[in-house]
Amino acid sequence: MSKLTDVPKRILIGRALRSDRLGETLLPKRIALPVFASDPLSSVAYAPGEVLLVLSIAGVSAYHFSPWIALAVVVLMFTVVASYRQNVHAYPSGGGDYEVATTNLGAKAGLTVASALLVDYVMTVAVSIASGIENLGSAIPFVVQHKVLCAVVVIVLLTLMNLRGVKESGKLFAIPTYVFVGGVFVMIAWGAFRGLVLGDTMRAPTADYQIKAEHQGLAGFALIFLLLRAFSSGCAALTGVEAISNGVPAFRKPKSKNAATTLSMMGLLAVTMFCGIIALAATTNVRMAENPATDLLKNGNPIGSGYVQNPVISQVAEAVFGKGSFLFVLLAAATALVLFLAANTAYNGFPLLGSILAQDRYLPRQLHTRGDRLAFSNGIVLLAGTATLLVVIYGADSTRLIQLYIVGVFVSFTLSQTGMVRHWNRHLAVEKDQAKRRHMIRSRAINAFGACLTGLVLVVVLVTKFTHGAWVALMGMCIFYATMTAIRKHYDRVAEEIAAPEGPSDDSVRPSRVHSVVLISKIHRPTLRALAYAKLMRSDTLEALTVNVDPAETKALREEWERRGIDVPLKVLDSPYREITRPIIEYVKSLRKESPRDAVSVIIPEYVVGHWYEHLLHNQSALRLKGRLLFTAGVMVTSVPYQLASSEAARNRARRRQEWSAPGAVRRGPAVERPKEPSAAKD
Amino acid sequence: MSKLTDVPKRILIGRALRSDRLGETLLPKRIALPVFASDPLSSVAYAPGEVLLVLSIAGVSAYHFSPWIALAVVVLMFTVVASYRQNVHAYPSGGGDYEVATTNLGAKAGLTVASALLVDYVMTVAVSIASGIENLGSAIPFVVQHKVLCAVVVIVLLTLMNLRGVKESGKLFAIPTYVFVGGVFVMIAWGAFRGLVLGDTMRAPTADYQIKAEHQGLAGFALIFLLLRAFSSGCAALTGVEAISNGVPAFRKPKSKNAATTLSMMGLLAVTMFCGIIALAATTNVRMAENPATDLLKNGNPIGSGYVQNPVISQVAEAVFGKGSFLFVLLAAATALVLFLAANTAYNGFPLLGSILAQDRYLPRQLHTRGDRLAFSNGIVLLAGTATLLVVIYGADSTRLIQLYIVGVFVSFTLSQTGMVRHWNRHLAVEKDQAKRRHMIRSRAINAFGACLTGLVLVVVLVTKFTHGAWVALMGMCIFYATMTAIRKHYDRVAEEIAAPEGPSDDSVRPSRVHSVVLISKIHRPTLRALAYAKLMRSDTLEALTVNVDPAETKALREEWERRGIDVPLKVLDSPYREITRPIIEYVKSLRKESPRDAVSVIIPEYVVGHWYEHLLHNQSALRLKGRLLFTAGVMVTSVPYQLASSEAARNRARRRQEWSAPGAVRRGPAVERPKEPSAAKD
Repeated sequence: MSKLTDVPKRILIGRALRSDRLGETLLPKRIALPVFASDPLSSVAYAPGEVLLVLSIAGVSAYHFSPWIALAVVVLMFTVVASYRQNVHAYPSGGGDYEVATTNLGAKAGLTVASALLVDYVMTVAVSIASGIENLGSAIPFVVQHKVLCAVVVIVLLTLMNLRGVKESGKLFAIPTYVFVGGVFVMIAWGAFRGLVLGDTMRAPTADYQIKAEHQGLAGFALIFLLLRAFSSGCAALTGVEAISNGVPAFRKPKSKNAATTLSMMGLLAVTMFCGIIALAATTNVRMAENPATDLLKNGNPIGSGYVQNPVISQVAEAVFGKGSFLFVLLAAATALVLFLAANTAYNGFPLLGSILAQDRYLPRQLHTRGDRLAFSNGIVLLAGTATLLVVIYGADSTRLIQLYIVGVFVSFTLSQTGMVRHWNRHLAVEKDQAKRRHMIRSRAINAFGACLTGLVLVVVLVTKFTHGAWVALMGMCIFYATMTAIRKHYDRVAEEIAAPEGPSDDSVRPSRVHSVVLISKIHRPTLRALAYAKLMRSDTLEALTVNVDPAETKALREEWERRGIDVPLKVLDSPYREITRPIIEYVKSLRKESPRDAVSVIIPEYVVGHWYEHLLHNQSALRLKGRLLFTAGVMVTSVPYQLASSEAARNRARRRQEWSAPGAVRRGPAVERPKEPSAAKD
Repeated sequence: MSKLTDVPKRILIGRALRSDRLGETLLPKRIALPVFASDPLSSVAYAPGEVLLVLSIAGVSAYHFSPWIALAVVVLMFTVVASYRQNVHAYPSGGGDYEVATTNLGAKAGLTVASALLVDYVMTVAVSIASGIENLGSAIPFVVQHKVLCAVVVIVLLTLMNLRGVKESGKLFAIPTYVFVGGVFVMIAWGAFRGLVLGDTMRAPTADYQIKAEHQGLAGFALIFLLLRAFSSGCAALTGVEAISNGVPAFRKPKSKNAATTLSMMGLLAVTMFCGIIALAATTNVRMAENPATDLLKNGNPIGSGYVQNPVISQVAEAVFGKGSFLFVLLAAATALVLFLAANTAYNGFPLLGSILAQDRYLPRQLHTRGDRLAFSNGIVLLAGTATLLVVIYGADSTRLIQLYIVGVFVSFTLSQTGMVRHWNRHLAVEKDQAKRRHMIRSRAINAFGACLTGLVLVVVLVTKFTHGAWVALMGMCIFYATMTAIRKHYDRVAEEIAAPEGPSDDSVRPSRVHSVVLISKIHRPTLRALAYAKLMRSDTLEALTVNVDPAETKALREEWERRGIDVPLKVLDSPYREITRPIIEYVKSLRKESPRDAVSVIIPEYVVGHWYEHLLHNQSALRLKGRLLFTAGVMVTSVPYQLASSEAARNRARRRQEWSAPGAVRRGPAVERPKEPSAAKD
């Protein structure tokens, strides 16, 4: 039956198992770039706007600082990229920041990085989806009118896609990312051409608005604080840069070199796009305000709460391409799509990091198994649930969500770079080769500079954004940290409790004989099979046990037992309250009391069925009894399954589940052993 | 540890197990009456009002028909009581209408009765709570302003109480019921005294309102139809009369006689209260309308949607005792409490009927186990969920809910009485004793009259109420009927599939040898125990099996294995994808393929932990593996538990769960065997 229907399917799509394995091909750079860069590149869709928003607090004149802030972001980006190039060479195993911090700074630093990254993944989903919805909304008004609803729908769709384990391919990432990057570059080039060559005056839709400064004529410390706040908002452009350092195993050889090159390309693209958009925004006179309803003025009057503030990228596109033009709509769609892809990367990263944490026993062990569907599902549902909560609480407003975003990123940047400095120190202590030493000293300098700069930014972000929402992110990190510490403690305690004593002299607890009991309700195939298997085991004594809940049935059972001449004694337990579990537990305990050195083996015939609702109809007493028996010392419980015809359905389902491919397979590369010790490879 | 803390508890409340058993004392009549009568007696709180409501459609002049309708209800009540006195004598086992119908009319009739009763239990909860809230609301305005919320809160409280298994005592029922009955009688007596002796004019709060007849001057068929509809609404007073026939085993001896006497007392009380309230309503000029907002006029103008129509019983109490007087408030509180107790009886009846249906394999087998907490919980949650849904949909409006109520009651009345006629026919066919025959003929006549009258009422109810909501009740019955038929079919099919072939010649499927495999991840106490137990079983071959997910760990395991000199060969399976389940399943299958006549015994060491969150941290791979192994033919799976220290907590919890007392113990009486054949006892 099943074989017949399988044949055409196999011809069409190949053997499922094989194709699963084949899916893990290595990535060439041109595919690796979009796979890993959708997250960092997509942040140029919201980062420039955030800078203008904050500056607007001091009035439109403060917009003149935007090039300087862009410059600061560029410097920071180059620093971070240069630093991570060192990571990629030194840790090609894909452990990422968590591995670097743990190896070099100890378990607590590692756990801090892990907590930061977990929060970061949640924020990536929330911010990217919110921003994607806003970009889509600039082309489709319905979307922006039902922002929260649309954002939740997109999260649900992404979640379902990832739960089902949709097969990923590099192309899925490549097309929207290249369209997005291409579109932004065309926009910058066409804008520059129109402005510089044609001498056109391009005006953003908000160019005629005025901004009511919340603090007019800001100077001194207050101005510096505001500029720092604008800068930390601009740092949103750096989120996701670290992703490549987790994905080195997915690259073609030479892995580290290719990963480093891709990283540089990504950094270059990101800063060009970021600066280009900032420049176009200045040229086209984009006006953004933190509270547009009151602070944005049209002919001197507040614009009111009905106004929707479109993202900078869409305002600029409107100015350059014209409202409603094909390129404008294409760019809006590509931007939204890339942002959704960026959110999707968190769906891969979250369970992947979970599996690494599970290996170190900070999370449940089962998360460690690669491609375990259930484990992935739990992680995905947790991620989606938290992100949905944030989206709903913050009204899918990317500006408010971004306040929570950047803390985690810079915690892991700083700790990872600090760890790298330690890494080089350790290697320099033993390295004799002068050429290699020079190389290491250079790398150490880069990482040290990176650590200082990202640490400084972290302080700036914390100081300028703490009350704006960064405290929520910090609280989230603390919750993850505390939970993981508790789990690790539990595992350690259990490991101690179950540690085997040395030497083979632990015979005191070993039972000498075994007494087997087969549970019987009626005589049918499952019980006959259980009896046959029980006999095979040749235990010291063997008896059949039944509970008398209905005297008539028990009498019939006894008669059939004799008629069939079953050569196992049948013991009947009375149960005036029609209970099953209690009499059996009490009987087993009495056996143990009679001969405490003997073990009791309880053999339970079980039906194996194929549908969940059949489970409601069968085995319930058996399951409950099993649960209770496990608490009784000196007992072992054996299930002898009898596969009903319907179990075929479940067997097929289980097979399909085994062949399920976990999301994120593309960026993870083929299965490799994660080494316990970091390798000392470098470029 | 556990023993020490148990001592004071045992001194204080006695040994839990014993007290559980002692709780099942038999009921004297004075306690049995309130235990069983809260449901039927409480219906006088809403039934009189329903009669007036329907009559008001033809205008206030139609109120003159109310004594005639009351008379019809009295005749019906006496008929039903007389009929059920026969049931109580003939079927003292407590099977109730379901047993009577099944035994005498066959399985389909029985299942119809069961479906009707299940719907009826749901409606009892919904109607009683809605009416209780309305009565409470006549004294506390807040309650009536938040009707739906309050009703849902009461349902949730009742549900929690029943899920926790609060110990019931007869007193719990006795006090509110007697206060309620006493209050109503004092009201009737005091009202009669004031009216007849003192000559006071008592006026209900609505006495001055006029009613706008929806159909003025109704005559002929239309009038008869309206009167029949009013009568069927009045029949709400009969709901719950059948409850005693389910509870005969709970009575003191002579059980049947005492139950019959209690039934008569209950009938007498109910009709007296019903008629008294109808008479007082007529005297005090109570005005009720189906749509009070438009049809109730004050000084010729519609009273508007802000008006809350209080129940008749509370309007009458206000007229007799005075608004806000102590007796008025006491009666309102007692009425509400009795109505909530009536709802509570459904919480007992629903799972109890479920357990009987489970015995006949119409519902999952585990429901059959008496006092099984999980089974009761599922039933209770289903009941509460459905009732909540109805309360929310119908806005906790007792008038609208009552339209759904009466169908189920009369379906079971009619089928049960028809069954009784068959019962007497069968017994008359073999009975020779003339005195007994006379008795039987008399009983048959009573039951035949009861069957005809209730059948007639059923037709009337269906015709007059079908479009008003009776169709919902019928649909509910169909759903229950279809589900139970499907479950029974499933059980029958499985029973056929697993039926043992006759004769001992079924050796072809019996394995000849057994190959044991112990799963090992690390060497610790649980695995050492599993190895020791596996050796005890003396299977034909024994090997230890580990999956190589981490080469370093596997190497360490191998070395320790040799160092400890464990005399079981260790087999290592490779798993490049860090999977655990698949390699083991494939290995077991390969063993089976090599020697198909051998069985494979897989022995899994398991941690037993005490808290649900610990389950998330342990045994997950083991559980999944077990689930998959059960689908593999020729395999048995043995769990060797290792009880961690924390498992003590769960052991205690399980013990408490065992000692849990199921709700409804009081009305169910002590455990007795339910006979397969009806006894022929009679009065």
